[in-house]
Amino acid sequence: MRPLATAEIIAVGSELLTPFRIDSNSLFLTRRLNDAGLVVRSKSIVGDDRVVLASVLRAALDRADLVVTTGGLGPTDDDVTREVVAGVLELPLEENPGVLEEIRARFERRRVPMSEINRRQALVPRGARVLDNPNGTAPGLWIDAGQRIVVLLPGPPRELEPMFEAGVAPHLVSPAGARHLRRRVLKITGRSESQVEEIAQPIYSKLGDADVPIETTILASPGLIELHLQAAGPDAALLERRLDEGRTALAAALGSVVFSDDGRSLEAVVGDLLRTRGWRLAVAESCTGGLVLGRLTDVPGSSAWVAGGVVAYANDVKTGVLGVPAALIAGHGAVSEPVAVAMADGVRARLAADIAVSVTGIAGPGGGSAAKPVGTVVIAVSAAIPAVRTFAFPGDREMVRRHSSAAALDMVRRALLP
Amino acid sequence: MRPLATAEIIAVGSELLTPFRIDSNSLFLTRRLNDAGLVVRSKSIVGDDRVVLASVLRAALDRADLVVTTGGLGPTDDDVTREVVAGVLELPLEENPGVLEEIRARFERRRVPMSEINRRQALVPRGARVLDNPNGTAPGLWIDAGQRIVVLLPGPPRELEPMFEAGVAPHLVSPAGARHLRRRVLKITGRSESQVEEIAQPIYSKLGDADVPIETTILASPGLIELHLQAAGPDAALLERRLDEGRTALAAALGSVVFSDDGRSLEAVVGDLLRTRGWRLAVAESCTGGLVLGRLTDVPGSSAWVAGGVVAYANDVKTGVLGVPAALIAGHGAVSEPVAVAMADGVRARLAADIAVSVTGIAGPGGGSAAKPVGTVVIAVSAAIPAVRTFAFPGDREMVRRHSSAAALDMVRRALLP
Repeated sequence: MRPLATAEIIAVGSELLTPFRIDSNSLFLTRRLNDAGLVVRSKSIVGDDRVVLASVLRAALDRADLVVTTGGLGPTDDDVTREVVAGVLELPLEENPGVLEEIRARFERRRVPMSEINRRQALVPRGARVLDNPNGTAPGLWIDAGQRIVVLLPGPPRELEPMFEAGVAPHLVSPAGARHLRRRVLKITGRSESQVEEIAQPIYSKLGDADVPIETTILASPGLIELHLQAAGPDAALLERRLDEGRTALAAALGSVVFSDDGRSLEAVVGDLLRTRGWRLAVAESCTGGLVLGRLTDVPGSSAWVAGGVVAYANDVKTGVLGVPAALIAGHGAVSEPVAVAMADGVRARLAADIAVSVTGIAGPGGGSAAKPVGTVVIAVSAAIPAVRTFAFPGDREMVRRHSSAAALDMVRRALLP
Repeated sequence: MRPLATAEIIAVGSELLTPFRIDSNSLFLTRRLNDAGLVVRSKSIVGDDRVVLASVLRAALDRADLVVTTGGLGPTDDDVTREVVAGVLELPLEENPGVLEEIRARFERRRVPMSEINRRQALVPRGARVLDNPNGTAPGLWIDAGQRIVVLLPGPPRELEPMFEAGVAPHLVSPAGARHLRRRVLKITGRSESQVEEIAQPIYSKLGDADVPIETTILASPGLIELHLQAAGPDAALLERRLDEGRTALAAALGSVVFSDDGRSLEAVVGDLLRTRGWRLAVAESCTGGLVLGRLTDVPGSSAWVAGGVVAYANDVKTGVLGVPAALIAGHGAVSEPVAVAMADGVRARLAADIAVSVTGIAGPGGGSAAKPVGTVVIAVSAAIPAVRTFAFPGDREMVRRHSSAAALDMVRRALLP
């Protein structure tokens, strides 16, 4: 087996050239190719178009050791990948009796007659290795084309991913001396991208110049900053060690704003902290309108540590269901620290929870004022040591809601830290 | 101005070749290029790599009338788009005094000294038109290169989109006789993809053979089926008329499962129906854990028609807060029609709402039994004419939750239909 250093990915399908669909298979493929030490140099998306696909494939074969295509392996005339690849590589297509038998058997099991067009899926370029597809009719193909490898995979992720794991990944095992690629991710909330940069910059410029250079990328979205560390080289164990050191140095410098260095989401971290204490959480939400609860209950097994919550969008729900005194709302406004505290205390008492968090704010576009502009959000935690904070979040309705849900989860996390 | 028929999009940036980031600018660009009658033939994603970008650009120029690049226009060495495009087109790069002045002024307004590296952003290929960037330092470029147009846009959507609208779209106006492209979307819930196909197939095979052929695409996700109709041709008014006829024919055949033919989401449709009646909705959620409320409150202005809701994950919250009799839960189980009805009635009464919906079910992975497997979900509507239904949704936790939230919103919609 030759060492493979570079890869390109070609997604085939006219639906991927509409304004409605995006190719996301390449994220899975990139991760797994990186794991095997390959660098992805380019990705392409083409329609069901023989001429364009042939042109893109030729260019990819000029640049990369491995070309992976996804999609276009179905039985209809629109499915052109098999023929175009065979054409470009100048390999004859031959009907494979074994594959034909598999397809026939599949139809029989489903008690559906096999239609003649499905014979096309049994065509295999001479010399290719067939990749079984237990989850669909289209088999994949591994073609060893002299200096290059071309792998053809079906488009649906539930067919593509198991096929890659079973038929492709084991054949990408790097020979001795090949390049490995390893990664770490630090997740941070409660700081802006530039604040994180300022603290992290001196460290990751050092990491970049070390014996094993570590490449650092910062990704920012509302309420979440991710620092990705990546290193490549021949010695996988050394990469792991250096990445762990880099992760430790960055985590120490950034402090408690780092909530996860093992891939867990903020809601999963909060869940694990609650589970450790045997506590149940309750939530009272106004402007986030269920987002905080939605994130928490997204975690499998969350019924063990989420009691539930109240979405109190209307003021009479704040008073009637949560027991917030109407005078408090009249005196301070619904978006105020006294009201947030009363909401958190109220939901904690009514749901008999051990800890509670409340969110009240102005997500916009309407509802802002000079004193309390859009983005003003108050979050309170009801616990042995209570907390309340007023935030001024930037951005539009969606951004304010996302920032608010992250800040609420983070205040719960901080209240639970040992 | 020449008519432009075909386009390709190249996204530049090494972060887009990681397993974490996807190019989504191309969805906006595809929509707007389609609006101007251009067909996107291929999309590519390349890193900050001069050799690969040059190779991909050359191939794109061979195939398309217009090539749009996004990203790689920043001031650092990693930002290679400007130089590579000038190199491939063999145009000298010249410092543009006007652009330099703009960049300088921008820094001055922010009271930050302009660093020398930012001069690079003032380099303009000879003859190119500069596209102002009111939202960042990197100007865009429109280069008329003989038979081809190359447009360079910055990567951040908040810079790219306004620049495209102001500096690119007006120059893509189709000359007389050029091809237009128009679209309609029908949104459907409560039917599977194959059920929709079965009803729609005879109609859209007719539409495909008409004087103005209409192309139909079906997109399915949990709880939502979209039928996209698309037609292209020289007479925009005729396209609009034929698409309206096609939409009407499909909507009539499919009936009330079509909830939107104007782009609105299911939650927005529900909101409009509530607003018309002057009603307020309350929600009681168990397995969806806030998703239904999160979707409803995602709609700007929803505070006018959402009272709020209760997420009753724990059984004692169902009894304590919603007033579901404990005997009902003991006798029928938390996932049962009597409990769902009591939850909906309870939340409607406690929140003084005009109508309420409840969801209780088993999202998995745990909690299923032979009698009530994972995916069993009961939804009840409390209103003048109440409704309750038991569903068996397929898929994993996330799919069951998404199916359930769509079904709950749809039962509210149906209760509100005139």
